Amino acid sequence: MSRQAAIIGGGVIGGGWLARFLLNGWDVAIFDPDPEAERKISEVLANARRSLPGLYDAALPPEGQLRYSRTIEDAVRDAQWIQESVPERLELKHDALRKIQAAASAGAVVGSSTSGFKPSDLGARLQRPGQVLVAHPFNPVYLLPLVEVVPHAGAEPAFVERAMETLRSIGMMPLHLRREIDAHVADRLLESVWREALWLVKDDVATTSDIDDAIRFGFGIRWAQMGLFETYRIAGGEAGMAHFLAQFGPCLQWPWTRLTDVPDLDATLIGKISSQSDTQSGARSIRELERLRDDNLVAMMRALKGRDWASGRTHREHDARLRGRVAAPDWSQPVETAARTVPVDWTDPDGHMNEARYCELFSDAADRLLELIGCDSGVPARGGRYVTAESHLQRLAEARLADRVRVTTQLLASAGDRLHLFSRMHAAGGRLLATAEQLLVHVTLATRRASPPAEALQARLREIQSLHAALPRPEALYCGRKTPGG
Amino acid sequence: MSRQAAIIGGGVIGGGWLARFLLNGWDVAIFDPDPEAERKISEVLANARRSLPGLYDAALPPEGQLRYSRTIEDAVRDAQWIQESVPERLELKHDALRKIQAAASAGAVVGSSTSGFKPSDLGARLQRPGQVLVAHPFNPVYLLPLVEVVPHAGAEPAFVERAMETLRSIGMMPLHLRREIDAHVADRLLESVWREALWLVKDDVATTSDIDDAIRFGFGIRWAQMGLFETYRIAGGEAGMAHFLAQFGPCLQWPWTRLTDVPDLDATLIGKISSQSDTQSGARSIRELERLRDDNLVAMMRALKGRDWASGRTHREHDARLRGRVAAPDWSQPVETAARTVPVDWTDPDGHMNEARYCELFSDAADRLLELIGCDSGVPARGGRYVTAESHLQRLAEARLADRVRVTTQLLASAGDRLHLFSRMHAAGGRLLATAEQLLVHVTLATRRASPPAEALQARLREIQSLHAALPRPEALYCGRKTPGG
Repeated sequence: MSRQAAIIGGGVIGGGWLARFLLNGWDVAIFDPDPEAERKISEVLANARRSLPGLYDAALPPEGQLRYSRTIEDAVRDAQWIQESVPERLELKHDALRKIQAAASAGAVVGSSTSGFKPSDLGARLQRPGQVLVAHPFNPVYLLPLVEVVPHAGAEPAFVERAMETLRSIGMMPLHLRREIDAHVADRLLESVWREALWLVKDDVATTSDIDDAIRFGFGIRWAQMGLFETYRIAGGEAGMAHFLAQFGPCLQWPWTRLTDVPDLDATLIGKISSQSDTQSGARSIRELERLRDDNLVAMMRALKGRDWASGRTHREHDARLRGRVAAPDWSQPVETAARTVPVDWTDPDGHMNEARYCELFSDAADRLLELIGCDSGVPARGGRYVTAESHLQRLAEARLADRVRVTTQLLASAGDRLHLFSRMHAAGGRLLATAEQLLVHVTLATRRASPPAEALQARLREIQSLHAALPRPEALYCGRKTPGG
Repeated sequence: MSRQAAIIGGGVIGGGWLARFLLNGWDVAIFDPDPEAERKISEVLANARRSLPGLYDAALPPEGQLRYSRTIEDAVRDAQWIQESVPERLELKHDALRKIQAAASAGAVVGSSTSGFKPSDLGARLQRPGQVLVAHPFNPVYLLPLVEVVPHAGAEPAFVERAMETLRSIGMMPLHLRREIDAHVADRLLESVWREALWLVKDDVATTSDIDDAIRFGFGIRWAQMGLFETYRIAGGEAGMAHFLAQFGPCLQWPWTRLTDVPDLDATLIGKISSQSDTQSGARSIRELERLRDDNLVAMMRALKGRDWASGRTHREHDARLRGRVAAPDWSQPVETAARTVPVDWTDPDGHMNEARYCELFSDAADRLLELIGCDSGVPARGGRYVTAESHLQRLAEARLADRVRVTTQLLASAGDRLHLFSRMHAAGGRLLATAEQLLVHVTLATRRASPPAEALQARLREIQSLHAALPRPEALYCGRKTPGG
């Protein structure tokens, strides 16, 4: 059965909703009177198509049909979900919601993207106020899972549960707030940071860039995985949450922020927070939480390394610093092409290194060999690079989280566009854990076709090949024999 | 030349500094009068050893020597960096800093981990106040790169630059604040959120768990990679930062937060923020920033998927939902074992899928085949699982970011503890992109030794094998012939 959503208002938020519904297989009708709406929406949609499907390890359903409506009535008529994302002015919201209710099915869910208004504000002049709930998402809506759900006091519980389930079905994490309040929860927190940041800029304590760095290199990374309270629970350590909170009390009296209206952190409030924190995180010890936190941080920062961004860039720079300390290789021996520790994002929940990461280690090792030879794959100006056409991997023993491992690489042959390598992965004690035979082909970047590398590089490879010819060769070789069966 | 650090105060913060210096090759002397100090530090150190080395793709230098000192004087004598992390009371800080300066080399850097005090507070009664600078880190200190550096007004610029360089050399991101202020920058922002959160809990608007979820499923993920201002610059979209800010003005008058002392967002402040934001982010268009943001978010959330945590868990659940929609396979044909989109964390900066990710795709495909057969690797209760002992990969053509790809898997043979698979990776149009031959061995989890799987599973595999025997076989097979050369 085809599912239909109507999007009323196609700005950054409405466009993000549209993309999320559409890419999750819903048919979508959009109403936006802006003559530029179609262009703007197609740009949001292009971003979403580029990033959302890859987030999953399974395929999204076929995209739904997108239809531009000329009226609200036409857009909402057959919709099971109607999302209102018109500008944040109450009279505009009222007007749109009235028109929506006049044409929509009484069973449809009407979500409002309002960041500030309460359901009672939105429903004030409506026939069926219980049909409208706040469904407040976060930009980019097609990627971030959070949606704050605040039902009207008159909403049926089954209706609210159906709305929550629909949001889950398009990959979101609905957070059901039990009490309505201006700006809900997340934007109140954001608003407080925003006000403090305005003071810091106004008073020339920090620039916008300083403030952004103070966020993204520190607590911002923590907050991607644990929030304020769970983080502080860990910081409190063995002494526990109540002890930690009691310490905080006096600080609240300090003139730290310009925003000085604060609640009394008395025994009642401390007790309430401690008990809620126990419910939230008490099933795990502080040590367990610390390890979970550290694993999350390492995995995320390594992901950012892959993007060469924020804290990931800091760690890449440290990698370069660490590599700079390594002595030049003895080219008469197999070359050390990796010396590293097995990181958490390479392991399964039992702490065993995933088999695909053996490939990654050997692939990195081949890159490192080329870098040592002076053929850095990070220099596209070179006009060409080696890619692996074929590889044969044998795993002999397991590596585990935090094990130190080492790879040495032997150059078997180099001729024309071909480069034939054999690498061995050893544990810290010297035990052989795995081997990889790799056949690389040099390709011209512009054409992506095979071509020999520059003569200077070929000469360098011949030189190493002649040195490595004296080394014992692997007993069996597999690559470069045949094309695979079709 | 060996480098020596002295750590004064070995709590969570001091212990984190200790671990960071030690694991980056510094010798470290620690002074902490707590009789439990050694146990507490060894626990922090165990966490750091488990997580920090894996953050890097190169090996950290050999660990330095750790020495417990009985006096501050003994700890600091030969140190080039002295880090004070005693409790946050000014008289304790003064006392420790006086003792440090009495025994330390005049050229040593004395960093204070203070979260609240200004350098002028710390230096008030010191002989050489310029030697002490605020070096305020974030927990866990051994992982998070941020350190706020606030020099004393009397510090030499060359001394400050040396301090910054030392912090970089142990993998940190020093943020040099030009103006001293109580609580520096990051903790002022945190403090404002903390105060608002206390109100929300006190007023029963949200529980600690709600607040944490409102952070980590939404803006917390954004803030791991871009801060407040860059995020809002993007939200402002084409209209630009100044326009976006002007819209914000009226909101500041709304009674959203209980913290209502706010600066006037007048033309001067708007102009200042816009111009700082141009300096910070103006080199990139909004569209470029959006794509960078999206790539960062996808990569980090996929990292969290690997940990089954926070937003990563939401996305895993959606994966399961998406897979649940797929029809049961036709076992007489090669089985569809992957159907997905190439995500950004699988690609290089040019958008080509990294060769190691072909392995990952095929490895996931083998897992999926086993899952479809009823041998889910995620169920350790089963007592055994298949691991890949050998694989042969051929890459025929390139896949790119956002390409849809599909893998089908053929069961070549199953006997005893062995399972022999052949998989083909196709582009959306059907073109063959790569093949993988995999030889899996079933191991008992407890012993990690080869053993045949349960009889029911063997029977199921024989059944599929007999169906797949009718399929054309690959022309050449490579696995299971020989052990590799040593």
